[in-house]
Amino acid sequence: MKRVYNFNPGPATLPLEVLQEAQAEFLNFDNSGMSIIEISHRSKPYDKVHNQTKADILELMNLGDDYDVLFIQGGASLQFAMIPLNFATKANPGSYALSGTFSSNAYREAEILGVGEVAASTKDENFRRVPAQSELKISPSAAYFHICNNNTIYGTEYHYVPETGGVPLFADMSSDMLSRPWDFKKFALIYAGVQKNLGPAGVVIVVAQKKLIEKSLDTLPTMLRYDTFYKKNSLYNTPPAFSIYMVGKVAAWIKNQGGLAEMAKRNARKAELLYSAIDSSDGFYRGHADKDSRSFMNVTFRLPSEELEKKFVAEALENNLSGVKGHRSVGGMRASIYNAMSIEGVEVLASFMDKFRRSNS
Amino acid sequence: MKRVYNFNPGPATLPLEVLQEAQAEFLNFDNSGMSIIEISHRSKPYDKVHNQTKADILELMNLGDDYDVLFIQGGASLQFAMIPLNFATKANPGSYALSGTFSSNAYREAEILGVGEVAASTKDENFRRVPAQSELKISPSAAYFHICNNNTIYGTEYHYVPETGGVPLFADMSSDMLSRPWDFKKFALIYAGVQKNLGPAGVVIVVAQKKLIEKSLDTLPTMLRYDTFYKKNSLYNTPPAFSIYMVGKVAAWIKNQGGLAEMAKRNARKAELLYSAIDSSDGFYRGHADKDSRSFMNVTFRLPSEELEKKFVAEALENNLSGVKGHRSVGGMRASIYNAMSIEGVEVLASFMDKFRRSNS
Repeated sequence: MKRVYNFNPGPATLPLEVLQEAQAEFLNFDNSGMSIIEISHRSKPYDKVHNQTKADILELMNLGDDYDVLFIQGGASLQFAMIPLNFATKANPGSYALSGTFSSNAYREAEILGVGEVAASTKDENFRRVPAQSELKISPSAAYFHICNNNTIYGTEYHYVPETGGVPLFADMSSDMLSRPWDFKKFALIYAGVQKNLGPAGVVIVVAQKKLIEKSLDTLPTMLRYDTFYKKNSLYNTPPAFSIYMVGKVAAWIKNQGGLAEMAKRNARKAELLYSAIDSSDGFYRGHADKDSRSFMNVTFRLPSEELEKKFVAEALENNLSGVKGHRSVGGMRASIYNAMSIEGVEVLASFMDKFRRSNS
Repeated sequence: MKRVYNFNPGPATLPLEVLQEAQAEFLNFDNSGMSIIEISHRSKPYDKVHNQTKADILELMNLGDDYDVLFIQGGASLQFAMIPLNFATKANPGSYALSGTFSSNAYREAEILGVGEVAASTKDENFRRVPAQSELKISPSAAYFHICNNNTIYGTEYHYVPETGGVPLFADMSSDMLSRPWDFKKFALIYAGVQKNLGPAGVVIVVAQKKLIEKSLDTLPTMLRYDTFYKKNSLYNTPPAFSIYMVGKVAAWIKNQGGLAEMAKRNARKAELLYSAIDSSDGFYRGHADKDSRSFMNVTFRLPSEELEKKFVAEALENNLSGVKGHRSVGGMRASIYNAMSIEGVEVLASFMDKFRRSNS
């Protein structure tokens, strides 16, 4: 069977064992005589999947009973709107650190509602780094402080948890959710579109303090209120069951592999392989991110010319390395090396980078 | 392999051939070396799926270039809010016919925003029928007139297309989309959560006149504006690719079977089998819906006692007939007989009904 090394930023590679398991039971889930996509969301077999997935996520994040997990559709982009709609006002605006495309998009939704403020921005440096703690100007009256924890397009990641002076900390972790242990208790609300590190596009995981989501404004549409999802265990209407089921399988896979500590170890090793290939290339490869903001999930780099970049993409593909073309905002290359990308796959890419450099410098 | 006859109202049974096809290519879609759930939504193989699915839906509905198909997450419940947010004002409210649970929920979202009015309601008759044309009081200033075309819970369906006096006609067709030819051109906007008749939960299909969705209010959050989806071909952010892919396969299956005319023929035959079993039961089975509002998709009926109803559900299951328990709002039984339910499956149920009646009257 043909399988490529898939370095796409999302939708992205998933563990082969997980795909095989889903394939094997696709026509008859849990001996129900139905596919997982045909089974009622009010049935016991689905209920088990739903609740086990929630429990595994909390366990992996080492969070207790004061947090809940919600499953919401619409992508992180809908969260960009739900967050200010639920929490921000003109008197208590949402405060945003702009460190890339998605944090800027999140801020824009608060701006549309007239309830956003900027705490820091690295836009003038083409988002080569995340803001430092000392640069954050968070109003004490802010309803929350929002960051994007890992910037998929620019290849940067927070290596510290911001201190907010008591303002609730919110984070978009779409591209590094469950990739490393972290002090998640310092966050009031974390969300992630699952299609990068955790499963098929179609669901966002929201992990939030219960006290924050147990009551929403009555003036909001039902499906935009966090308490609709909280009170009904994300079953107010039919949930995106297949995506949740796959996320459950991926979470179980992470647990079986050794949890977030093991993921972090592998991800650090993979990142090291690629950053070494960049740093030891005598300037042939130039990393986009500042060294102390480098992402463990998305490695961005340029080559000496756009012509060579095109050649790199084409030859990589011939070597079974797919999805290495970068986003137009940065140009060049991007290798996304989420949990499910094997060390072997990254070794093949690093060795290809080395060979390509020697043939073309 | 174990397969049951699945009469659940949604998520619901899907064509076995379609499931088998998806299973066979689950690890390597279109020879890409990736699963359909791992492949980029900006890639050519996905693009083909996305656009072919749109084209097939328009073709099946016999709609031309003045309509577009959008893929939106959040379920029909989010459409209940997006519709008044995009189209209704206090001066030009949305007008609603209340014929069951979901049309009432749709109206409630307009009510939350203070922009809804009721054109007709059959609530006092426990929604045994849809309103007649003569009962509809639609304000000439209404922004739209909204119906739920088929009422899954009560087992009723519109057998006529309402005349609105020029007010744009909107319809929730979640439970009868693509089940029969219809005069779709009379509708300005049609939407359907796909998990009943068309695929796995996780996407809503919106079929709308382009002139209606090409420009939305700038004050709305990006993901709640129809023009965001229209202008970006539903690819503003990562779409729920797996659900769309499966809907595409189901649409192709419908075309191959003979299109909506053939679906209507089969669905009429299936409905006839069950309604005959009810009507010829000497009152043992009592249909909930008035005869001229009977649904071709969901057949609702009661038995002489709740004890017998429990027994019916249990014995049906022993006969491989799953999901026949009705919704608590009606009680009794409900058999959902969407496109993918075979005539054979319905024959087994009808014959079981007959046998059960004879053993228990």
